[in-house]
Amino acid sequence: MALSIIDIIEKKKFNKELTKQEIQFWIDGYSKGKIPDYQSSALLMAIRLNGMTKNETFNLTDAMMHSGEIIDLSKIKGVTADKHSTGGVGDKTSLSLCPMVAALGLKVAKMSGRGLGFTGGTLDKLESIPGFSINLTSDAFIRQVNSIGMSIIGQSESIDIADKKLYALRDVTGTVDSIPLIASSIMSKKLASGADCILLDVKYGSGAFMSTKESAEELAKIMVEIGTYFGKNVQAEITSMNQPLGLAIGNILEVIEAIETLKGKGPKDFTELCLSSGATMLLQGNIFKNREAARTALKECIASGEAFNVFKKFVEAQGGDVSYIDNPKKFPTALYKHEIHCLKSGYITSINTMALGIESMHLGAGREKKEDIIDPTAGIILNKKLGDKVEKGSLLLTLYTEKEIDKTATQSINNYFEISDKPIHVGSPVEELITYSKEKKEFTILSE
Amino acid sequence: MALSIIDIIEKKKFNKELTKQEIQFWIDGYSKGKIPDYQSSALLMAIRLNGMTKNETFNLTDAMMHSGEIIDLSKIKGVTADKHSTGGVGDKTSLSLCPMVAALGLKVAKMSGRGLGFTGGTLDKLESIPGFSINLTSDAFIRQVNSIGMSIIGQSESIDIADKKLYALRDVTGTVDSIPLIASSIMSKKLASGADCILLDVKYGSGAFMSTKESAEELAKIMVEIGTYFGKNVQAEITSMNQPLGLAIGNILEVIEAIETLKGKGPKDFTELCLSSGATMLLQGNIFKNREAARTALKECIASGEAFNVFKKFVEAQGGDVSYIDNPKKFPTALYKHEIHCLKSGYITSINTMALGIESMHLGAGREKKEDIIDPTAGIILNKKLGDKVEKGSLLLTLYTEKEIDKTATQSINNYFEISDKPIHVGSPVEELITYSKEKKEFTILSE
Repeated sequence: MALSIIDIIEKKKFNKELTKQEIQFWIDGYSKGKIPDYQSSALLMAIRLNGMTKNETFNLTDAMMHSGEIIDLSKIKGVTADKHSTGGVGDKTSLSLCPMVAALGLKVAKMSGRGLGFTGGTLDKLESIPGFSINLTSDAFIRQVNSIGMSIIGQSESIDIADKKLYALRDVTGTVDSIPLIASSIMSKKLASGADCILLDVKYGSGAFMSTKESAEELAKIMVEIGTYFGKNVQAEITSMNQPLGLAIGNILEVIEAIETLKGKGPKDFTELCLSSGATMLLQGNIFKNREAARTALKECIASGEAFNVFKKFVEAQGGDVSYIDNPKKFPTALYKHEIHCLKSGYITSINTMALGIESMHLGAGREKKEDIIDPTAGIILNKKLGDKVEKGSLLLTLYTEKEIDKTATQSINNYFEISDKPIHVGSPVEELITYSKEKKEFTILSE
Repeated sequence: MALSIIDIIEKKKFNKELTKQEIQFWIDGYSKGKIPDYQSSALLMAIRLNGMTKNETFNLTDAMMHSGEIIDLSKIKGVTADKHSTGGVGDKTSLSLCPMVAALGLKVAKMSGRGLGFTGGTLDKLESIPGFSINLTSDAFIRQVNSIGMSIIGQSESIDIADKKLYALRDVTGTVDSIPLIASSIMSKKLASGADCILLDVKYGSGAFMSTKESAEELAKIMVEIGTYFGKNVQAEITSMNQPLGLAIGNILEVIEAIETLKGKGPKDFTELCLSSGATMLLQGNIFKNREAARTALKECIASGEAFNVFKKFVEAQGGDVSYIDNPKKFPTALYKHEIHCLKSGYITSINTMALGIESMHLGAGREKKEDIIDPTAGIILNKKLGDKVEKGSLLLTLYTEKEIDKTATQSINNYFEISDKPIHVGSPVEELITYSKEKKEFTILSE
């Protein structure tokens, strides 16, 4: 019998499992413009409310992945690696982590999307380096990965056609917050991008899309299982986003912090995330057999300047002006610096990370709407983080912006911080590492 | 704070009650083309899966009703009445019932929609009378109701703009089967049509949209409560659609049966439905105080020819050729008559009414797609009904069509009838009458 999109919507509405053929029919028809937005959005809402089985999620990922080009990385010598973060406030990880693992032999062939976020995405951060280009031909991309060990470019328009259309539709129809839809969106793009090894960084907490650790674990597990099922080495780390990552939020501010980190002078939490993620990626790629050895090697390649050197070569290869990397003081700075001081003494026990992300967006560091233009100099530098002891009047953070801010900012920004009498313990940002064995059909969760 | 359709979708997705303002914002924006189909369809699916509270359903009806013109019937002298059936197989009720109650003093000002159905709608049946026009100016419509007592015309394009758009969208997004959406669709149109008294005929069973009596009652109650809330005299009858109504299915065939019924020679079940519904309408309109008196008067106006006379005047006033009404043999007949005989002896204990409706549609009596053209001669005449005793070989029904039918028809059509050894009791098609008291805030259910 011929398939019909109305029958498929009806079936999902009655919470019955869609077949591989039905999902394929939808994704194929929608990608090609044969099925209109209004039918896809009804189906998306039925999926959001009734969920999807594991089989449905696998089949959706498969159909989406095949809606566009699958990138062939076979001309790259060595193990290709990719990483993906679900996004957070101050997340400049790719800028530091990729040069570190490339310096130790992994081939990092990374394509990034330009998400709508509180702060710019990786592409926006890279583009704040004068001259830097995110557009390379696929030949140039592969040549660069072979010669330097890494490249980060904008995601090709020809891959995962379905995801582009679906993501834009989900964004305006209240259907973003669905684990099967998030998992298939991320994994179809990552699988189409062609790398052998993929590390997923699934963030949770007040500054992340997933608010609880449980929901982050659920998303991480299904993504790891999908990736493994499609023959890739996929692992996921669960990381806390209960405070901004590092001290810098905002594009140029984060590039500078990434450079400092590559020189061994980065913030403790961000450096730890890079070392932990880097060790996992090196183990995934079989470059090291032992986590401690991998961590030691990563620390050594920072100390020797080798990681920083790869970053410079990468910037240069993509047209960026390396003099800014050598001398970050050359970067332009914001017109205004507003210092915000603590209104109370004690220990910082909680930070409303989301609110700080939105604040930095309002300062100019992120986009409210797709067409908004980012101010690369705007953002926030934190002076205090979770667990720190503060005195009334001590510098809490500095706002960087081209805009005047009003007098109530000190009070409102202090409201984003909970200050108590008793200190708290703050652990590593990486809390768990999740892997899946296809043979044993079971997950292993490694806690920090 | 400014309202946003995305926030409204999100709210309904999380099963929170929408405010009057939010519903108004959606309906107004959608009617005016400011909110696109793809957002309305996501919201419709969220409503379908999460339901609506009574307040939401009231507010949705209100917003839809006000999306277009509200018909002013104040120039009609007397009590204006309207009826609406949720639709069934062989439902020609308006054709016989409206002249009967008009003959006794009710002013029937009825606007019909042209639904997609197994058999044509009331408008299609009327248009099978040569010359009959369903398009009158509103002045002519009111003049005719004042002079003759009744008029049935096509629903004005300018009333309930929202319903036209929403109904078309629901039809292709799997969101038809939602009680709050059905109730608000029917009631917003009926309230905009302006009559004082409205009788709703909510059908259930194998040939109706509502398959169970419980769901029909649920729909009936919310509609009666909505109508009462908006100051109208609204009552609902629950009628069984476990067999076709009367013996005729198909446009001309049904017009002829309606004429026969107005002459007192109609099928028992259909005549009973007209008498029972007519009595309810006359009580609603305060023309009679007592059900038995109303029934007696209805029987008398059939016997005296007065009801038939109103029908003739009505057909004539709207341009129809009355010679067909006086002599129904003038109507064209179908090219083929295929007689179907019983393959078994016994009592008919069940009829798959829906299957007979679909069969008649295939014969040409209904539309599969909006653009299909109806064959007015096509249809089915039943020789046997529920409870009847049949012998193997006796005539079960006759198919009327321009099409050849295949040899397996006898077997497949026999399959729509269950024939058993034991007789069954078949009651009146009208099983319940539901009214609502605004003062007491309670329903009264009168069972037959």
